[in-house]
Amino acid sequence: MQICQIAGYKNSGKTTLMNQLILYFSKTGVIVGSLKHHGHGGDPDLGKLKDNQAHMESGAIMSGVQGEMVSQFTLNMEMDLDEMVRVYSNFPIDLLLIEGYKHAEYPKIVLVRNREDLSLVDELPNVIAAGGWDSELLKNLDVPVFDMKKPGEYLPRLAVYIRRCSYG
Amino acid sequence: MQICQIAGYKNSGKTTLMNQLILYFSKTGVIVGSLKHHGHGGDPDLGKLKDNQAHMESGAIMSGVQGEMVSQFTLNMEMDLDEMVRVYSNFPIDLLLIEGYKHAEYPKIVLVRNREDLSLVDELPNVIAAGGWDSELLKNLDVPVFDMKKPGEYLPRLAVYIRRCSYG
Repeated sequence: MQICQIAGYKNSGKTTLMNQLILYFSKTGVIVGSLKHHGHGGDPDLGKLKDNQAHMESGAIMSGVQGEMVSQFTLNMEMDLDEMVRVYSNFPIDLLLIEGYKHAEYPKIVLVRNREDLSLVDELPNVIAAGGWDSELLKNLDVPVFDMKKPGEYLPRLAVYIRRCSYG
Repeated sequence: MQICQIAGYKNSGKTTLMNQLILYFSKTGVIVGSLKHHGHGGDPDLGKLKDNQAHMESGAIMSGVQGEMVSQFTLNMEMDLDEMVRVYSNFPIDLLLIEGYKHAEYPKIVLVRNREDLSLVDELPNVIAAGGWDSELLKNLDVPVFDMKKPGEYLPRLAVYIRRCSYG
């Protein structure tokens, strides 16, 4: 399973790029898994799966439900990224795209909103490409760059970088 | 990881017993995982995790979100029970309680609503105990039986059977 992260500060376009890449790879026959870090402070609103909720309240640390085509697991424990990744490795996934966890060691694409964000490209481990909406900003970086305004142009190129450089 | 199933027809008390057992074991220091079969025909309503939903719609076969204390994985694929169980085995779970999948091979408790249900006790594999609300019905079974009307009485006894007989 190859792994690639999408990193960047809030509102840098991570969600947009994640969905573009999932769609692009899925259409070309790559089996994609995705993982998102909820960000700091709290837990995601997991909706209301009545039975699962009851099991968690009764003390289960992991609760699952299986339907015909969709299954879901909820875990009531602290986990680190490596433990999360290990769960994906149980399944026939070709590429795991990870949104967030910017200090993790996996190969990553960094999104840049402004001049201050440029330092991320040097500071974060294993940056394989950088993108943003302001192509002037990206001009002097020493990693491959792409212009978020032109997805039709950058997606095929970025997909090649990801498949070539990603971990796994 | 030990495994035990709770089997029985609809409205036989599976959900009640699941929650009683999860609560009982959790209070006695056993780390419990739970799994429920959604039943036939369709998929559970998984609520609205906006990003996960978008990733699935873009083609991801597995999508996850990690919060501080709660994480959730959604899988968009057909899985059999053994594959589901394998996911639990990634985690430090002592006992996996499974609701449904009555024809599976794991040790199981059968719940009996009426005379017709009694045949389940003979037909299903690895029945270790049977319970119901009508103690007269259960009288002549050749497995340990318990009266669902008296949880304070049967839970400690049932817990011993489960820990002794369950698979793993």
